Amino acid sequence: MKSKICDMLGIDFPLIAFSHCRDVVVEVSKAGGMGVLGAAPLHAKDLAMTLDWIDDNIDGKPYGVNIIVPNKYVGKITDEKGSVDKKTPPEKIDSTAQRNFVRKLLNNYGIDTSDLTDDLMQRKPRIAKNADFSGNSQILDIALSHPVKLLCNSLGVPPEHMIEKAKERNIPLAALVGKKEHAINQAKAGVDIIVAAGGEAGGHCGEISTLVLIPEVCEALRDFGDIPVLAAGGIVTGSQMAACMAMGAAGVWTGSVWLTTAEAETNPVVKEKMLAARSSDTVRSRNRSGKPSRQLRSAWTDAWESDIAPEALPMPFQTSIAEPAMAKVLKLAESGHEGAKELASYFVGQGVGMMNQQTTVRQVVYEFMDNFIEASERLQSFNQE
Amino acid sequence: MKSKICDMLGIDFPLIAFSHCRDVVVEVSKAGGMGVLGAAPLHAKDLAMTLDWIDDNIDGKPYGVNIIVPNKYVGKITDEKGSVDKKTPPEKIDSTAQRNFVRKLLNNYGIDTSDLTDDLMQRKPRIAKNADFSGNSQILDIALSHPVKLLCNSLGVPPEHMIEKAKERNIPLAALVGKKEHAINQAKAGVDIIVAAGGEAGGHCGEISTLVLIPEVCEALRDFGDIPVLAAGGIVTGSQMAACMAMGAAGVWTGSVWLTTAEAETNPVVKEKMLAARSSDTVRSRNRSGKPSRQLRSAWTDAWESDIAPEALPMPFQTSIAEPAMAKVLKLAESGHEGAKELASYFVGQGVGMMNQQTTVRQVVYEFMDNFIEASERLQSFNQE
Repeated sequence: MKSKICDMLGIDFPLIAFSHCRDVVVEVSKAGGMGVLGAAPLHAKDLAMTLDWIDDNIDGKPYGVNIIVPNKYVGKITDEKGSVDKKTPPEKIDSTAQRNFVRKLLNNYGIDTSDLTDDLMQRKPRIAKNADFSGNSQILDIALSHPVKLLCNSLGVPPEHMIEKAKERNIPLAALVGKKEHAINQAKAGVDIIVAAGGEAGGHCGEISTLVLIPEVCEALRDFGDIPVLAAGGIVTGSQMAACMAMGAAGVWTGSVWLTTAEAETNPVVKEKMLAARSSDTVRSRNRSGKPSRQLRSAWTDAWESDIAPEALPMPFQTSIAEPAMAKVLKLAESGHEGAKELASYFVGQGVGMMNQQTTVRQVVYEFMDNFIEASERLQSFNQE
Repeated sequence: MKSKICDMLGIDFPLIAFSHCRDVVVEVSKAGGMGVLGAAPLHAKDLAMTLDWIDDNIDGKPYGVNIIVPNKYVGKITDEKGSVDKKTPPEKIDSTAQRNFVRKLLNNYGIDTSDLTDDLMQRKPRIAKNADFSGNSQILDIALSHPVKLLCNSLGVPPEHMIEKAKERNIPLAALVGKKEHAINQAKAGVDIIVAAGGEAGGHCGEISTLVLIPEVCEALRDFGDIPVLAAGGIVTGSQMAACMAMGAAGVWTGSVWLTTAEAETNPVVKEKMLAARSSDTVRSRNRSGKPSRQLRSAWTDAWESDIAPEALPMPFQTSIAEPAMAKVLKLAESGHEGAKELASYFVGQGVGMMNQQTTVRQVVYEFMDNFIEASERLQSFNQE
């Protein structure tokens, strides 16, 4: 396909797949799109092993790596070129109410929480360690010792050393945004590709819908040499891809649609719930990370949205509490625990309503291609006399 | 243009404009689209006069009329073929907290509220009278004594007598929905056109985004003889229109974009605020009618979203309180009252961020046409080798 993104990334079809699963990354790239590995929650040695495996299996096709370095979070560590946020030092955050709430919630669903200790729920999560200068430096070094063809940052302008390293090596640098103003900031900082994600997206998201955000961001970026835009948020079909590209996007960035593929390591209970879910079965909530993210509605999200729930803590403290608890829930759910099944949830966008049967990654890519052409022809047909 | 909607409605370009302003209705129809007059808040005699005026000025072009008969509201009056909701009789609703909150809010912004009496804020609003069987019968009779070419209902399945009258006269009947399930219900009830409105829409709206809702609804309606879908929600440009039609919509239904045209009778303070607003400057709240609706963010919406605000009352009681108060605010804002300017708000969708300069209705229609072709060509260009 003729698209700026295809030229920049050396791919045939401008369908980018964000995933934590190495198999998904590899399969999407081999099918003509591009897989991007989410490295944020990984230990350095796991990242290295995963990238080695990808290199061994991807047949030389291009792939990318995504990290999370937020512009703002409590206790953000100063790097020599980064910003400081020391207004609320980490030790001042009292998470007693949230820890107790989670334990009580799990207890109510028949789950023993004696191993969800105060100590465990106050540990700095891996994702926060990787957001620090030392953490993201290490991740970048590992990524750059592999033939990555795209680097991407979520939740903020990439740290300066990331921008420099990408430019030095001629690797395109992408960044996710949920607002036009953020896209402009990213463009000014020198980012090469903007991923504009609407409020219907799974995981961290803003409130502006994809249909509004894409034309807005494309218009705003005209002043910055037409930086290509990848549309994100709710996109699970080739017709939505065509829609976004009709509005000016150069391609799409997807995440949710891969979670129900055969290759995805999604918890089987969650996978089943997603296949059955309607588009209205998601909720945008701060309960998982402290920043708003879209998740599959479950007894867990309902509880956090109820009037008696404590307010979610700021990033990264909410993660310290939610992730060990949800990890426990997911493990129990998989073993058949009924209460845990009700609580089980994961990040997913509103597109979940159209994810109705498990297929392979390759099938999803091919369906995108087919639906894209179909949509393109449909639009063309309106112009006929 | 070749579209099922154009054939059904006898128009050239499938751009439908919902408006309370007769000039907008007339101008859109004369420019090749179709204007639909929002009749819900009108007295019978005003509706008759407005339709007479439209007939005298529209050069024989087709236009439509929209009413609001919700599926559910407190105190819904039984019609001989309608449903009953008598769980909460009107007289049992205590609106003291809400009345006091509104008066205190206006006082805080320097507005005297002595004329916002308890009596005034407990009157059944016109919009609720028109939702009753006798009210909507009268409106329909008036509408049908004029050459209307489209009837539409919001917030629920049209009452049976509306469906019958439309069928008898061969007038296409449309209905607004925000969920796939509602679209199926409307199709089963015999509606001819589904207006699928995403959560980014101005006024009453659901939570599913337009980009997700349109392909979902189109897919669901395949089992009902391909009932045409008009896409709505956030659409203010022809490129968004093209996007929705690439996904299967037969045309679009718009509202917000007309509010800032020269012909619109929008309060001038609100118009100015809308022209300056970003896409993030809207809020979805129950404060205006008791059902969630998207509005321009202002000191009024901020107050209702604050922790100290009482919960909004169910429809139609919240309208009884909000509408007289906001009418007062808007009148004062127009005369230059600073506090009233801060409070002033109106229904608008996220597309407001792209409504940046006042133009004429005709210009908006022509820009839609130009941008539609541009987007169509853009999408086509990706398929070139």
